[in-house]
Amino acid sequence: MDYRRTHRCHALRKEDIGKVVTLSGWVDRRRDHGGLIFIDLRDRFGITQLIFDPELSQKAHEQAGALRSEWVITAKGKVRARGEGLTNPKLDTGEIEIEVETFEILSKAKTPPFSICDDKTETHEDTRLKYRYLDIRRGDILEKLVMRHRAMMTTRQFFHQEGFIEVNTPILGRSTPEGARDYLIPSRIYPGNFYSLPQSPQLFKQLLMVSGMDRYFQIANCFRDEDLRADRQPEFTQIDVEMSFGYPEDIQEIIHRFLKILFKECVSYEVPETIPSMTYHECLEHYGTDRPDLRFEMPLVRIDTIARASDFTVFKEQLQAGGCVKALCVKGGADISRKEIDRYTEFVGKFGLRGLGWMKRQEDGLSSSIVKFFSEQQQKDLEEKLGAETGDLLLFGAGSEALVNQALDHLRRLIAKEQNLIPPNVFKFLWVTDFPCFEWDEDEKRPQAVHHPFTMPHPDDLELLDKDPLKVRSNAYDIIINGYEVGGGSQRIHDNEIQKKVFQALKLSPEDVQEKFGFFTEALQYGTPPHLGIALGFDRLIMLLTHTENIRDVIAFPKTQKASDLMMQCPSKVSQRQLNELEIHAEPKEITWI
Amino acid sequence: MDYRRTHRCHALRKEDIGKVVTLSGWVDRRRDHGGLIFIDLRDRFGITQLIFDPELSQKAHEQAGALRSEWVITAKGKVRARGEGLTNPKLDTGEIEIEVETFEILSKAKTPPFSICDDKTETHEDTRLKYRYLDIRRGDILEKLVMRHRAMMTTRQFFHQEGFIEVNTPILGRSTPEGARDYLIPSRIYPGNFYSLPQSPQLFKQLLMVSGMDRYFQIANCFRDEDLRADRQPEFTQIDVEMSFGYPEDIQEIIHRFLKILFKECVSYEVPETIPSMTYHECLEHYGTDRPDLRFEMPLVRIDTIARASDFTVFKEQLQAGGCVKALCVKGGADISRKEIDRYTEFVGKFGLRGLGWMKRQEDGLSSSIVKFFSEQQQKDLEEKLGAETGDLLLFGAGSEALVNQALDHLRRLIAKEQNLIPPNVFKFLWVTDFPCFEWDEDEKRPQAVHHPFTMPHPDDLELLDKDPLKVRSNAYDIIINGYEVGGGSQRIHDNEIQKKVFQALKLSPEDVQEKFGFFTEALQYGTPPHLGIALGFDRLIMLLTHTENIRDVIAFPKTQKASDLMMQCPSKVSQRQLNELEIHAEPKEITWI
Repeated sequence: MDYRRTHRCHALRKEDIGKVVTLSGWVDRRRDHGGLIFIDLRDRFGITQLIFDPELSQKAHEQAGALRSEWVITAKGKVRARGEGLTNPKLDTGEIEIEVETFEILSKAKTPPFSICDDKTETHEDTRLKYRYLDIRRGDILEKLVMRHRAMMTTRQFFHQEGFIEVNTPILGRSTPEGARDYLIPSRIYPGNFYSLPQSPQLFKQLLMVSGMDRYFQIANCFRDEDLRADRQPEFTQIDVEMSFGYPEDIQEIIHRFLKILFKECVSYEVPETIPSMTYHECLEHYGTDRPDLRFEMPLVRIDTIARASDFTVFKEQLQAGGCVKALCVKGGADISRKEIDRYTEFVGKFGLRGLGWMKRQEDGLSSSIVKFFSEQQQKDLEEKLGAETGDLLLFGAGSEALVNQALDHLRRLIAKEQNLIPPNVFKFLWVTDFPCFEWDEDEKRPQAVHHPFTMPHPDDLELLDKDPLKVRSNAYDIIINGYEVGGGSQRIHDNEIQKKVFQALKLSPEDVQEKFGFFTEALQYGTPPHLGIALGFDRLIMLLTHTENIRDVIAFPKTQKASDLMMQCPSKVSQRQLNELEIHAEPKEITWI
Repeated sequence: MDYRRTHRCHALRKEDIGKVVTLSGWVDRRRDHGGLIFIDLRDRFGITQLIFDPELSQKAHEQAGALRSEWVITAKGKVRARGEGLTNPKLDTGEIEIEVETFEILSKAKTPPFSICDDKTETHEDTRLKYRYLDIRRGDILEKLVMRHRAMMTTRQFFHQEGFIEVNTPILGRSTPEGARDYLIPSRIYPGNFYSLPQSPQLFKQLLMVSGMDRYFQIANCFRDEDLRADRQPEFTQIDVEMSFGYPEDIQEIIHRFLKILFKECVSYEVPETIPSMTYHECLEHYGTDRPDLRFEMPLVRIDTIARASDFTVFKEQLQAGGCVKALCVKGGADISRKEIDRYTEFVGKFGLRGLGWMKRQEDGLSSSIVKFFSEQQQKDLEEKLGAETGDLLLFGAGSEALVNQALDHLRRLIAKEQNLIPPNVFKFLWVTDFPCFEWDEDEKRPQAVHHPFTMPHPDDLELLDKDPLKVRSNAYDIIINGYEVGGGSQRIHDNEIQKKVFQALKLSPEDVQEKFGFFTEALQYGTPPHLGIALGFDRLIMLLTHTENIRDVIAFPKTQKASDLMMQCPSKVSQRQLNELEIHAEPKEITWI
């Protein structure tokens, strides 16, 4: 029997009644009822009801009795209206059914380890990963993969129309001394030497600018052998972009237009006409982090002056030690219990903050055990600075800048989540600029590049390169969406003199430079155009578009947090012959699989 | 000075005269002439002439004297007509020039190791690879990369519109026991265990069909650690396609439509409405190869019957030993010299053929030292069978089928090339079908899968699986263009009973199967739809579209035939810390770089 379909399982409607059709798919459910057999036939597009009536075909009815869930069949028959009261408004095809004349079993199925048709079933993620092909069949992951595809198409179409050329850069690259840990690949032809998988195509895209490519993009595979956080994968994908003869505002404008089209196409969301911009220092000051979630208010407010003038020694001591005091105003938080506040205190303690002051704004003013240390005017000033109104809760952190910022940032986000302050289906975009160019590396006792040593310093700070490198800002920019750093980029150095000064600021000798970046600095000396770029985390974008916090949901065949593939059981032992060919020696450890 | 361009270097025309423009790019040439300085400013789009006139700007003119080739500059000035007789019809912008008012040097350049502006210069490929960014700047490679981009866009657009979903499959996979040699990646978390880079996403795409994805495609990165032939790279790209509920004719039809659109979009070439089809055995019979180049005629003609009846013992002995005699008719080849024919004889000798018979068709019939062994009728029969006319050369090979086929296939192509029998700018497409399913492995003394063990046998040959597996044809198909195997695919087995028989034919025990393909055969048992697919060599397609025989020309940063990257100098040594983390031991060999 020819199993080619005339329709997919979502397609048939009342208008098709009377047509003879062929459908193929999976048995979702079988019901035997009143001498008839009903099969819900499923494919990824939908479900159509098949009916096996012994009066129409004795043989088909008999054989249908054997059908089990997840068997694959093809069936031919006539479309008919469902009986009075038997229509299913929840189903696109709910008004019709197929009277099966002939059908064939294409393949049988063992009982799956979890239910396919009921995607509400809770199954441990490890089991779902082991049987990933069945988990995809359940529909939820599949939909996200379809969204990923749509986003890839939209991305490529956009950059193509903007004159960017997609260039595939190598996967077998050279191990670089800076950055995260590389995955290595032993060479067989040059034993004892290694390739490495790229952490990003950074050098290649800059070389393409040197080559005159003018505008490059790539949806690029990137790799990092790091201990994985929940939202990381050893292989991930970024939208990698580079262009010549532009300034940061140009690439920001392009990315803004890209995001507008991407969000519109994928989730019909209107990205606003303006994306606000904040400097790195403003972000830290007001949100304690360089990637603030702007879907809700509740900024961190500095109250150093008031605290210093108060009688509250806890705050005053921190200020004298060079620290700061910042506060949050939780709108309507006055009914948060003492027990909850104790939990917050414990929570900020994990980040090193030794306590959490609090006040509640009641009808008659502020109240709490620490209010008495503040004069009436100071209380008024506090209320004003924090915009406190009746029913609000104020929370105070005191300590070093870094510590207060980190703790209150996390607390701000925790409270927003718990108190449902985050509106659903809203995306808040933000550019963050003016990052520091260098940070002090305590281990190596020298400045390190915050981004990479090819990042252009801010044009206003070039003078500081020799004198005070840690004060130099970089010409870099991050795009933040809902508190996630979705992308980052920078103007690159195209001027050899500035490049030399940056290497000096990093305390790299010409020999170090040659050894670490030799071929690349050489390349930059043959006529390098001003260029700049950005890389957007593609997996993260898809997570935002599909409203999941689990990166594995947006990758077809993901790895666990231990970088293993439970389905293929990899990594795995290899043969001694393979190792001999590579002239490497390794002792395989046993892995226990679920 | 703001270096953002109002125009690119190919854009300005007579109509723009009088406009004030900003151009940025590379100094292609500088000429000092009659007190004026002329600069050809180049970007990847074109060239525009800048003129520095001391009467317009003394300062600009003075500074322009310092400009050297490949320096990057930005220049602002007015568009003006070139003087009478000074227009350059070879240049799009040849009617205008820019009177430069102000300009700035954006970066200087060392003298490149080869000329950029004169792309005719012969440079050793190793030097070009070392300075790949400069080689790309010369334009020829860049154009091919732009074509590659265009072809990728067209490919994705096509498959998207046909309802295929692009899914990214993992790069970190599991080493498979069959096929070519894998690149391995040591795991740090599970020391002594390895990932491997995929040779193709074969298993993943089949799993996606099991998952109900229905139609999948991917422009996929693939890897093979093989000793490289000139047209191979360790990392290569394929258009990977898989669909459910179809037959070979369906996928052939889709690929035909794809090729039509691809060739039309990229090179304005009309792929014919019908692509001919030939069985594997027909191909071998008539062309000696399963990937015949059909741009020219000159088939191999079997003359066993005539030879057997003749008196020519050389042929008769080969026939008696179970061999064959085949002939080629070289049209107009009668003027090929005896010396040339001796060279052909030597050429076929390299493939093991011990001699090459020849006859020339003169006005008065066939002539050569072997003609006398053939009766007049036999000579007539020969002429008729080979379509020999006055002025043609007949060449004869005798020996085992395999040997004659291989030698005459190569000879046929050599002669076609040398005698200019191949029309330029023509593409000839061919489907080859009915490949054998298995071939005898003399080392292992058992049949091996010609494609892979999941290839569906031809439906007419299922009976033979037990009895005579080497006679079983597979349901596989290759697409050949101009003698290159551009793609191949097959119907896959979705029926567990057939799969078991195939494993039996391969003499694999259930334990072998479990060890080699355990998780995959398990997956196929949860309801597998009939499915089939194809993979097209993307690099090869771009080589055809850009008329190059060098695969490195269509890859931005290619490897040498020793799988090394001369630009980055990789593979390379890595630090002992890196090796320790992976718990592997390796002795690095020194590599000498150019």
